[in-house]
Amino acid sequence: MWCPCTRRAPRIHRDRYLLTPAFAQTIRLSSGTTTTMGASGTRTVNTTERLAKLRQLLKKPENKVKAFVVPSEDQHFSEYPAHSDERRAFISGFNGSAGCAIITLRDAFLFTDGRYFLQASQQLDSNWKLMKQGLPDVPTWQEFLSKHLEQGTRIGIDPTLISAAVDAESLKKSLEPRGSELVSLQQNPVDIVWGKDRPPHPHNSVFPLDVKYAVGETFQSKLQRLRAEIAKKNAVASVVTLLDEVAWLFNLRGTDIDFNPVFFAYAVVTPTQAILFMNDAQVQNSIKTSMGSDVEIRPYESFIPSLKQLTRTLGANKEKPMLLGDKTSLAVVEAIGQENAVLIPSPVAAMKAIKNETEIEGFRQCHIRDGAALTRYFAWLEEQLNSGVELNESQGAAQLEEFRSELDLFRGLSFETISSTGPNAAVIHYSPDPDDCAIIKKDQIYLCDSGGQYLDGTTDVTRTLHFGTPTDEEKRAFTRVLQGHISIDTAIFPTGTSGVDSFARRALWQEGWDYRHGTGHGVGHFLNVHEGPHGIGTRIAYNSTSLKVGMTVSNEPGYYADGRYGIRIESVVIVREAKTPNNFGNGYLCFEHVTMCPIQTKLIDFSVLTAQEKEWLNSYHVETLEKVGPLLRNDPRALQWLERECSPV
Amino acid sequence: MWCPCTRRAPRIHRDRYLLTPAFAQTIRLSSGTTTTMGASGTRTVNTTERLAKLRQLLKKPENKVKAFVVPSEDQHFSEYPAHSDERRAFISGFNGSAGCAIITLRDAFLFTDGRYFLQASQQLDSNWKLMKQGLPDVPTWQEFLSKHLEQGTRIGIDPTLISAAVDAESLKKSLEPRGSELVSLQQNPVDIVWGKDRPPHPHNSVFPLDVKYAVGETFQSKLQRLRAEIAKKNAVASVVTLLDEVAWLFNLRGTDIDFNPVFFAYAVVTPTQAILFMNDAQVQNSIKTSMGSDVEIRPYESFIPSLKQLTRTLGANKEKPMLLGDKTSLAVVEAIGQENAVLIPSPVAAMKAIKNETEIEGFRQCHIRDGAALTRYFAWLEEQLNSGVELNESQGAAQLEEFRSELDLFRGLSFETISSTGPNAAVIHYSPDPDDCAIIKKDQIYLCDSGGQYLDGTTDVTRTLHFGTPTDEEKRAFTRVLQGHISIDTAIFPTGTSGVDSFARRALWQEGWDYRHGTGHGVGHFLNVHEGPHGIGTRIAYNSTSLKVGMTVSNEPGYYADGRYGIRIESVVIVREAKTPNNFGNGYLCFEHVTMCPIQTKLIDFSVLTAQEKEWLNSYHVETLEKVGPLLRNDPRALQWLERECSPV
Repeated sequence: MWCPCTRRAPRIHRDRYLLTPAFAQTIRLSSGTTTTMGASGTRTVNTTERLAKLRQLLKKPENKVKAFVVPSEDQHFSEYPAHSDERRAFISGFNGSAGCAIITLRDAFLFTDGRYFLQASQQLDSNWKLMKQGLPDVPTWQEFLSKHLEQGTRIGIDPTLISAAVDAESLKKSLEPRGSELVSLQQNPVDIVWGKDRPPHPHNSVFPLDVKYAVGETFQSKLQRLRAEIAKKNAVASVVTLLDEVAWLFNLRGTDIDFNPVFFAYAVVTPTQAILFMNDAQVQNSIKTSMGSDVEIRPYESFIPSLKQLTRTLGANKEKPMLLGDKTSLAVVEAIGQENAVLIPSPVAAMKAIKNETEIEGFRQCHIRDGAALTRYFAWLEEQLNSGVELNESQGAAQLEEFRSELDLFRGLSFETISSTGPNAAVIHYSPDPDDCAIIKKDQIYLCDSGGQYLDGTTDVTRTLHFGTPTDEEKRAFTRVLQGHISIDTAIFPTGTSGVDSFARRALWQEGWDYRHGTGHGVGHFLNVHEGPHGIGTRIAYNSTSLKVGMTVSNEPGYYADGRYGIRIESVVIVREAKTPNNFGNGYLCFEHVTMCPIQTKLIDFSVLTAQEKEWLNSYHVETLEKVGPLLRNDPRALQWLERECSPV
Repeated sequence: MWCPCTRRAPRIHRDRYLLTPAFAQTIRLSSGTTTTMGASGTRTVNTTERLAKLRQLLKKPENKVKAFVVPSEDQHFSEYPAHSDERRAFISGFNGSAGCAIITLRDAFLFTDGRYFLQASQQLDSNWKLMKQGLPDVPTWQEFLSKHLEQGTRIGIDPTLISAAVDAESLKKSLEPRGSELVSLQQNPVDIVWGKDRPPHPHNSVFPLDVKYAVGETFQSKLQRLRAEIAKKNAVASVVTLLDEVAWLFNLRGTDIDFNPVFFAYAVVTPTQAILFMNDAQVQNSIKTSMGSDVEIRPYESFIPSLKQLTRTLGANKEKPMLLGDKTSLAVVEAIGQENAVLIPSPVAAMKAIKNETEIEGFRQCHIRDGAALTRYFAWLEEQLNSGVELNESQGAAQLEEFRSELDLFRGLSFETISSTGPNAAVIHYSPDPDDCAIIKKDQIYLCDSGGQYLDGTTDVTRTLHFGTPTDEEKRAFTRVLQGHISIDTAIFPTGTSGVDSFARRALWQEGWDYRHGTGHGVGHFLNVHEGPHGIGTRIAYNSTSLKVGMTVSNEPGYYADGRYGIRIESVVIVREAKTPNNFGNGYLCFEHVTMCPIQTKLIDFSVLTAQEKEWLNSYHVETLEKVGPLLRNDPRALQWLERECSPV
């Protein structure tokens, strides 16, 4: 599933996934985008009173700011924030996934991008001015602060929600010549206005993962490796603020957040201490016992005050600093003092990205099981459509979740299923609204992008099918996407290379086609389906982080014909050492695919497929049948479908 | 021919090329690198007296510096400096192409890279300490200035030889905390020491190019386009300091520099003036007449003083600055005043890189003729080797030059011919020394990289051949290189893409092979064989400059087995608009090859070549035979060879 930073949709079906309940309903707008609506069902929230209260607070002597910034982010810069962290939605009434509100003493501005212009214009009341970012002459919210507010403005922020390295740094630089300044407020005034209506912060019990069968490394060993990094960087401690990093480091998982099996926590690791800042009630005694004296648990709320004290007791300074990841909030930097901290690409992210052999074996196993659920679903869907049963996209997704939920070690979906027919398949971030979505049509392309969370790994797979007769253009597009997929799957490249993205596009380019997303993102191990720091794409971030043995990454080229159809073929692959006949340089890498689900041969235009590509396809199908077939003993329909779909071409 | 920035070798054979005479002989060292030796023939120059005189000058009250930097560069940052500009070679005795000398009041240091360790150690006398850049713990000359010289050192430089944007800027930054500073000396003390022995600066007559048949655009039109750029940038003038840019802008060529048909000049273009700073004696009256009042010629030496005056009269300032290319010297920036100048990627380079239809047609035509000379040479060489004639690499190169010199519009070589047998072919920057080079062996790979300057274009072509029976490994390597070459030749990619380099390497990577140079460089039109700003490669500079319609670029993947053999297949291609069935995005580009010379099918391992690649090869050979064949009417041997080499596989 593509695009970690721009999508977020609430989860609807949660029969087995022990997460917080959805608070929202979803409707599909005519534009094809997904709109999340408040539980009240009303389209517009009257924000007059909220804004009035907020402005009172801004004017108070302890604040004395003339503007306040309310971004979408939570304190951990999570992809899916908890509802108690949806401050921007509360204050503005607009609850799309991306946007930033700026409230001045007189006006209120909501900045969002093209995906949300319609939704925002419907949800905002007359107190708000919609700022359509991306249109000519519309500033970003960052530009707005420096260019459109009066000179010398004190601008209030909640420093826990602003990243120090990216936003705070550049904002300070652009505000300085204007004589304006960012002012970190002690308490977020939106929280005060929200008051008792604010949903409680989630605090579900966490659970440990088995070292031998699931994660392959004790948390003590991980701490030791992190301590080696701390020593290498000549630092006194490492501060871990991202939820998946904390979960990985301590071999714990939780259910505080949708789709990501994480829990609210921070951690500080020093050469001798490991402090976990989290709600004590979330940790069972058995976990505490097994952690023993290696880990000290302190209250979540004590994190910032503890940082101040730790900075002093550890004697952090410029020469011996605290290590912070580059996504750390300004509040953390301010607590430690800029001069005592160094912001670097997170060492925990780098360690987590490289999977050990236990995790890799888990990836293989969970993908085989996951492939069985997908096979059962596609076989079922074909039968339904052939029998003339009317099914909508959401019902399809629900059935797929049902099949997944019967699998061993299943712990929920890894993201909202993209079940999309015809034109909806061209909407990259589509997810169907159960109350208002399209009927799956036999004579249209059907694109299904979905994934599961399992105790032994995380899956993310897209298959595109046609249950009737595809057009020549659809077949050509599918084949070009497939050629790109095969080109990545079979690539061999020297260690340190970052330029394999174009392999996925070459065949499409021959037709004058392309896709406006990257080719691959990192995948967590029973963790976030999107993880860094690596990927396959043209973005600078990806190209500055080369692929390394043991990394997991998606291989998902696509093509989207707006208003007509969309195609994507996605499998998860693991970076492995390549056994090449020669070894010029420092070694070569290749990919091992773990996703096991047939690629529909009916959609192939064989006039452009090479002999080698045909061979690859046949061999992939032999492997898939061999691995997934044995799991389908109790579903003859699925087994028959799998055998047919895996027959050689 | 690869690697604009790291090679330079003197030209030996100049029967027709009207350039300055070579002053040096060349010997091949056992390491396989090329060493240029002083005319005296002695290996070591006694520098004691030169250094003593230089130090006297450094101590003079008008200088008062404790160190002096002597880089390799000339005032125009030319790839091939004139002999009068080889100051570093004069002062140190080391005359390899790359290196920097730093002379302090007590010591003398020569910094160079791995290619020249041996040569430098042989040429430097005991006054010098060789600094082997690239070895652990050896600083670069830039680092040396800030880290190894005493704090508070005044460091003398010749500001005409230091680039403002790259070196001066970063040096100043690194010296500041040390309290050291760069001091621009009024006159280069090396020139004073060199005195009467210094060769005269070249000042050969320049000649104009025909607009209709050669360059396709009047210089007035070029000036007008440059003025539009000046206006767009809200500037008062553009200062042009690179020799090929001046030559291109005024449709003039010269013979002041080896291989590059340029002349010593600077230019300043304002909205109403165009001033050419060059030796008046180099410009015939007929040129002056045809230029009329559009161009004012001023003495070369008056450039810097004129800049100061122009800055004042034009009223240049921060808001309305002078435009300088990013390779401009510190002297120019100092003359104008940093606050009145802006350093940007040269607008002239960007204009020059995009060839018009006349230039493109010239490229096509000169490459066909050039292909005839290559064909005649390879046919002749094969016959010689089959007859048992003993020929060395240099004799081969001389014969090739002879054939080229018989062609219409030929004006010399575009670089020193790389004629290399067996292990020498693995030395990317090899050029044979006529007095000491290898015999071309029938049972070894033979790599020939060469090019010509023609009034209608510049060529640069590499073909690799075997006149006996190649080994399986050689065939496999040749085929993998060929597949990369074909992959670039047939690539279609969206406008704005920079990531096609990996297409050239994919086939090699499958074997665990690669090459340590880029895949393509820009090629001038009867100008420098290496030109920017574009290219195909992994370097950041290339990737920040996307390919545009009309650009010329080389396609030259290779593979080098150290000590055994080397393979490169290079053709020049032109970036053209691709006619794709669809057009997702902003248009697609492709390449048109203009080099016409057979690719030896004997060296192909057909077990790895795809059907499509075979088809490409056959079609390329049909085209080559069709275009080159008619030029070989008077050389039946060559025609027969061409027909055989172009037969379908």
